[in-house]
Amino acid sequence: MADRYSEYRAVATSLGVDAVALVPGPNFTRLMGMAFSTNERPKVVVVPRDGPPAAVMPNLEITLFATLGFPGEVFDWRDQTGYDDAFVALARHLPLKSVAVEGQAMRVFVSQALEKANPGLRIVDGEKPISRLRIRKTAEEVAALEKAIRISEAALADVLAKVRIGQTEKEVETMLVQALFAHGADSLAFSPIIAASDNSAHSHAHARDDYRIRKGDPLLFDFGAAWGGFNADITRTVFVGEPGAEARDVYATVLAANLKGHEVTRAGITAHDLDDAVIGVLEASPYADRIVTKTGHGLGRLVHEEPYIMRGNQQVLEAGMVYTNEPGLYKVGAFGVRIEDDILVTEDGCRSLTTFPRDLTIIG
Amino acid sequence: MADRYSEYRAVATSLGVDAVALVPGPNFTRLMGMAFSTNERPKVVVVPRDGPPAAVMPNLEITLFATLGFPGEVFDWRDQTGYDDAFVALARHLPLKSVAVEGQAMRVFVSQALEKANPGLRIVDGEKPISRLRIRKTAEEVAALEKAIRISEAALADVLAKVRIGQTEKEVETMLVQALFAHGADSLAFSPIIAASDNSAHSHAHARDDYRIRKGDPLLFDFGAAWGGFNADITRTVFVGEPGAEARDVYATVLAANLKGHEVTRAGITAHDLDDAVIGVLEASPYADRIVTKTGHGLGRLVHEEPYIMRGNQQVLEAGMVYTNEPGLYKVGAFGVRIEDDILVTEDGCRSLTTFPRDLTIIG
Repeated sequence: MADRYSEYRAVATSLGVDAVALVPGPNFTRLMGMAFSTNERPKVVVVPRDGPPAAVMPNLEITLFATLGFPGEVFDWRDQTGYDDAFVALARHLPLKSVAVEGQAMRVFVSQALEKANPGLRIVDGEKPISRLRIRKTAEEVAALEKAIRISEAALADVLAKVRIGQTEKEVETMLVQALFAHGADSLAFSPIIAASDNSAHSHAHARDDYRIRKGDPLLFDFGAAWGGFNADITRTVFVGEPGAEARDVYATVLAANLKGHEVTRAGITAHDLDDAVIGVLEASPYADRIVTKTGHGLGRLVHEEPYIMRGNQQVLEAGMVYTNEPGLYKVGAFGVRIEDDILVTEDGCRSLTTFPRDLTIIG
Repeated sequence: MADRYSEYRAVATSLGVDAVALVPGPNFTRLMGMAFSTNERPKVVVVPRDGPPAAVMPNLEITLFATLGFPGEVFDWRDQTGYDDAFVALARHLPLKSVAVEGQAMRVFVSQALEKANPGLRIVDGEKPISRLRIRKTAEEVAALEKAIRISEAALADVLAKVRIGQTEKEVETMLVQALFAHGADSLAFSPIIAASDNSAHSHAHARDDYRIRKGDPLLFDFGAAWGGFNADITRTVFVGEPGAEARDVYATVLAANLKGHEVTRAGITAHDLDDAVIGVLEASPYADRIVTKTGHGLGRLVHEEPYIMRGNQQVLEAGMVYTNEPGLYKVGAFGVRIEDDILVTEDGCRSLTTFPRDLTIIG
C-alpha cells in the first residue's frame, strides 16, 4: 500500500494550505484502517504538508487508536475536563494558519475548536480533492462491494419468495432486514425503501405500516447491505400480480434507460454524457414529465459520493470508479418504477456488480 | 403540542442572534415530525426571531417536505445546478447577520453556504440551548424509549439462551441483530458491542470473527434497538460458565455502583453528585485503577446527548430527563465488566426503564 499520509500531504500542498484535517468518516477510515464513530466527542487527525501527523482523540478511545500504529503525537482529553486544552496542545505542537477540511464530514463544533486554538485560521472546504483519493476503487475494495451486493441480492431473492398480498410495507421491510443480516451484512447501507402502490412514486419513501399490498401493486425495493466498510445500493421494482398496460410500458421504458447506461459506460465518457444518454431515453418516451432524478451517484465507503452522474458534470469517468445507474419514472399519486445497478467502470466498458434479474417480475 | 417554532425563536432571542438554523438530526426531526437524512445535499430550516421560518431543501425531497405543513417559504435546488442560488434566495428573503446553529450537527459545507450567502455572518454554536429543548422527555417520548428497550431486552433474552462455547463474537452479534429486528426494531441504535474475554476491557470494542468464546469468559453486550425515533442503550455482562473469584468480586463491585446510581437519582441532584456517588463506589474498591468512564449520558433521539453524568457537570437533574447509568471496570489485557440501565428521573426518585435482571448470570 502506498503511504497514504503522503497522499493527504499532496492535497494540502495542491490547495496551498498548511495541513489536511480529517474527522471520522470514509477518509479517516481509509487512512487509519478502522472506523471511529461520529458523536459528541471531537476526534481529528491532522496531516501537515511537512512532518508527521498529529491527532486529538478522546481518552476513552486511546487504547483502540494506539493499536493502529499512528506515526505522530496524540493529544487526548477526558469528558470531565473537555477538549479545549487538547486542541491548544495540538496547535502548540503544530500551529496552523490554514487547513483543508472535509466540508461534508467536519461539524461546526470541530472547526470552531480548531479556529479557537489557531486564531485567524483559514478553513478551506477540501472535500472534493480529499475524497477524490478514494474515487477509484482498488481490487480489494471492489471485492468488498461485491460481497455487500451478493448479500443484498441473496436477501432480495429470499424476500420476493415470501411477499404476499395483504402484507404491509413495514412487514416486508422487516423480512428484508432479517434476510440481510442472515446472509452476513455487517449493517444496513441505509434505511431501506420498501414502497408499494402510490408510495413508490416518492423517490425517498418511508415504509408504511398501515398500507396492505394489493393485487397488481408495484413494489419497489431500494436497499443494500454494508460489508467490510463498503455499501451496496440496489433497486428492483416488481409487481404483486399482473400489472396494467401503462405500468408495463413504464417498466419497459425505465429498463431501456437502465440498459442504455450499461451500454454507454466506459472509461473516458463524461458523467454529463452518460446521464444525457440514460435520461435521454426517458425524455424520448411519453413519460418525460415523470422524470425526477439524475442517473445516479458514486458508491463506496459512502452510499452517496463522487462521481455524481448528472448533466453539467464534465467529470471524466475512469476505470475503477463505481456508480449507481438508477433511472426512474415517478407519477405522484399513482406509482413509480426504478431499476438500479452498481456499475464498475472499466477501460473498455463496464461490469455490473449487481446481477439480479432486471426483467419484469411478477410475484405473490 | 406547544408551537415548537416559538421555542426556537426564544432560543434565538436568548442568544441575541437573528435566527436559529436547524439541519437534519434530532432537533430537526422533533420540529418537523419526520426524519430527513444527512447526506451530500444541504437541507436547512431557519427560524428567525420574528416572522415565519424558511427552508432550503433539495428538489428531490420537496414532495415529502410539503406533506409536513411547513409554515414558510421553501427554496429548492437541483443536483444539476447546485445549491448556491437557493441559499442566495433564502438570504434575500431572510437576511441574516448572526445565526445559532447546532455545532454537533451542522457540517462545514452548510455553514459556509450560509456565510457565502450572508457575507459577514456570525455563526454561534447554539447546540446546548437548542438541544436543551428536548432534554425533558414527554410521556409519549418515554413510551417510545420503553418500546425500544422492551425490544432490546427481549432480543437479549433470546440470544442468552443460544450462546455456546466455541461461537465467535461476530456470530453472537449476528444472532443479536436478527433478534432485535424480529422483535420489532426500526433500526439499531448503534453498532452493537459484543465482547468476550480481553476484548471486554475495551469500552468501545468491535466484535471479532477470530475469537471463539471459551468456558469462564465474561461476555459483554452493549446494544440497543431504535424505535419510533428513540434509542435504547443497555449493557449486561454475563459469564459463559463459572467465573473466577476475581471476576465475581469485580462484578459485585460494578453492580453495587450501578445500584448506587438507582438509589441516589432524584430531581434536584446534580450530574456531578450523581457521578460522584456511583464512581465513588468503584474508587472505594480494590479496583480503582480500572476506572475508565464516567457514569453515563443522556439518552433519547440521540444515543449520546445531555445530560452527561460526570464530575464537573453542575447541571441539576429534572424530572423527565433520561440517562444511562453504566459504571464499569476495565483491566486491559484481561477483562471488563459493565452494567448499564436507562434511568428516567422522577420528582422523588427514578424509574429504571431497563428491567433486565442484573444479578450475576452464568449461561451456556
